Amino acid sequence: MIKVGIIGVGTVGTSVANILKDNADVISARAGQEIVVKSGVVKNLNKDRGLDIKLTDNVDDILNDSEIDIVVELMGGVEEPFEVVKRALKSGKAVVTANKALLAYHRYELARLAKDIAFEYEASVAGGIPIINALRDGLSANHIESIMGIMNGTCNYMMTKMTNEGVAYDDILKESQELGYAEADPTFDVGGYDAAHKLLILASIAYGIDAKPEDILIEGIENVTQEDIAFAKEFGYAIKLLGIAKKDGNEVELRVHACLIKQEEMIAKIDGVMNGISVVGDKVGETLYYGPGAGGDATASAVVANIIDIARSGKSTPMLGFDKPMEGKLTLKATGNIESKYYLRINVSDRAGVLAKITKLFEDNNISIETMLQRPASENSANLLISTHTAFERDIQNMIVGIALLEFVNSTPVMIRMV
Amino acid sequence: MIKVGIIGVGTVGTSVANILKDNADVISARAGQEIVVKSGVVKNLNKDRGLDIKLTDNVDDILNDSEIDIVVELMGGVEEPFEVVKRALKSGKAVVTANKALLAYHRYELARLAKDIAFEYEASVAGGIPIINALRDGLSANHIESIMGIMNGTCNYMMTKMTNEGVAYDDILKESQELGYAEADPTFDVGGYDAAHKLLILASIAYGIDAKPEDILIEGIENVTQEDIAFAKEFGYAIKLLGIAKKDGNEVELRVHACLIKQEEMIAKIDGVMNGISVVGDKVGETLYYGPGAGGDATASAVVANIIDIARSGKSTPMLGFDKPMEGKLTLKATGNIESKYYLRINVSDRAGVLAKITKLFEDNNISIETMLQRPASENSANLLISTHTAFERDIQNMIVGIALLEFVNSTPVMIRMV
Repeated sequence: MIKVGIIGVGTVGTSVANILKDNADVISARAGQEIVVKSGVVKNLNKDRGLDIKLTDNVDDILNDSEIDIVVELMGGVEEPFEVVKRALKSGKAVVTANKALLAYHRYELARLAKDIAFEYEASVAGGIPIINALRDGLSANHIESIMGIMNGTCNYMMTKMTNEGVAYDDILKESQELGYAEADPTFDVGGYDAAHKLLILASIAYGIDAKPEDILIEGIENVTQEDIAFAKEFGYAIKLLGIAKKDGNEVELRVHACLIKQEEMIAKIDGVMNGISVVGDKVGETLYYGPGAGGDATASAVVANIIDIARSGKSTPMLGFDKPMEGKLTLKATGNIESKYYLRINVSDRAGVLAKITKLFEDNNISIETMLQRPASENSANLLISTHTAFERDIQNMIVGIALLEFVNSTPVMIRMV
Repeated sequence: MIKVGIIGVGTVGTSVANILKDNADVISARAGQEIVVKSGVVKNLNKDRGLDIKLTDNVDDILNDSEIDIVVELMGGVEEPFEVVKRALKSGKAVVTANKALLAYHRYELARLAKDIAFEYEASVAGGIPIINALRDGLSANHIESIMGIMNGTCNYMMTKMTNEGVAYDDILKESQELGYAEADPTFDVGGYDAAHKLLILASIAYGIDAKPEDILIEGIENVTQEDIAFAKEFGYAIKLLGIAKKDGNEVELRVHACLIKQEEMIAKIDGVMNGISVVGDKVGETLYYGPGAGGDATASAVVANIIDIARSGKSTPMLGFDKPMEGKLTLKATGNIESKYYLRINVSDRAGVLAKITKLFEDNNISIETMLQRPASENSANLLISTHTAFERDIQNMIVGIALLEFVNSTPVMIRMV
């Protein structure tokens, strides 16, 4: 019998305990032995969680319990769970976590500590979709060329509603908060940080890249308007928040931002709160993984799958997929060197000579225009909606500064990258 | 160092050898050790395969070679490879195969022989998509409610072309044969047998069901016409060949046939030669896996992933996902008891009283009509295009026999199930 201790019995922790009980028949048949939750740690012992497991408010009760084989960390935060899982690993307990922030910062230290003991984290990326499993084991024969993922259900829900129902950004944000899809402070989701944490985890498995959130390009969806979405639709694109990892020679670019994606791409067809991750391998080509990226039961499904894996075989795979570093190690590409096509929306006062001055700035920065539309915005202003050919990020950023300084430009241009 | 012997060095076998060489850097970093192909078995030693591995035409050279750790079986067929892999397992060699026919017939005998040694078969279902991995490990916490898969790229290519370009069945079959997507004798693909083999493998992992092809409902796409596709489109459906497994209480229904699927379902959006499998778990909800279901490199990507798994950890998971049978074992539902909605196309002579006689047969068989369209087919015949509410398979089959006997019905009605 395998005994589990859950540190942090909130929505996901409660689901983990319930799944282990509800599905005990199939779980014990698959794992070859019974798996039970021995105890759980909560902050507030007085709250009824409808569970018949022993609860405590002291992590030591789990960490010092020699009967507990697997510690499930669902506390949230970064440094506090880091200390807790280090102690668990050092005392020989396997660890399962859903904590993406912990991994975004400390995955390499944890991989070293977990050299000979299982540390699993399937639920940390894309909730119920077994993407860690697919990337680390299923596609291990490949050099990974790219990963493009819808990794944040809140943003995808908002973008879908804006696209399909014409709802404005502020209204759909409010609705998402009321539905519980977005937090009261939505920055972590709509600012792209949540997706960035997940992207960093996948990038380690695909490329062995040790980057932290502050090292990579992270933007959110806050500046996407109805106008941008209408332009996208007209030209055959959808707008999604994507996490992107792409190999270019010995460099890997990592970035999170809103994207215009061609409507016929599978990833553009993923709507609502669902997540989806497209992975291109040099041998297999494109594979894509779709499913629920959040929710107590979906996330707990991944946590319990990890527990079953550990019950079956202990440690079977190196935590981050690499048993030793690759020769010819890959490095992170500087943000300025990233190449992309770009969409720009520039609000200008409606007067003579505007276009000439703006297109001159494009030319000065070596940026070639692919399409341009001018649309009236108000009585005496217009929006220029422009898509470019492939250009360097540093050139676009430089040009945007230049455009914003023009006296007939009414606000900082909005830029959305295209894939 | 892990040494591999490949039995059957055709398209996939050549790709396996090439991947192990081309991607040796990333493979050895992930596996923690070098993996090399020591030798391969071919029928014709004179054919140049552009490989620098030792070739032989005698399987004993691999089976009796004590240096070989892993036997890769890519011979094709059923009984001959069965004997070969049994010998390999008995001599303590791990086995990797892409052979779905072998598994459709002998997976339980093989699972018993492979109790303590690795036997892996990721490539046998949906080529490069790691669906065995996802179902057996990633979703192991769930009771699987259903599996619906596009598991045959040839059929999906043909259906897509018929839908998008209005190509007729015979023309697209010819084109598929010229492109190498379909065999000279296409029955195995278009008759649904290939998909059935794959479905049986997935059903064992999901449900522990020991069924053989002859036990389940298998139909192909041979009777689907432009008219059916036009009807489907008009009512918001796509037509695909699906493998379906569905749990209903303690019974599991297994079936392969063409289906009308609502266009908004993710699985309806999978076009061309690509495969896609939707799995619904009781806890995780729907997840979907998309990618190339065939092709030398894509299939070999899955074979090599299995080799890496074995190099990493030997045997880590029970071959068919169950370490012991589940209590309350599931059984196969009798075909007649399957419930579905149905679409029917009935070609009738255009005369008075026809509709009354046909609708009477629907009533007699307890089948309720949802929509009906009548369209002229020739100068004096018409097609009745009918969709039903949920009905039993035995009732539909019975009614079709009755309809076919009516003197004004010009040919056996075409029936396509709806999901």
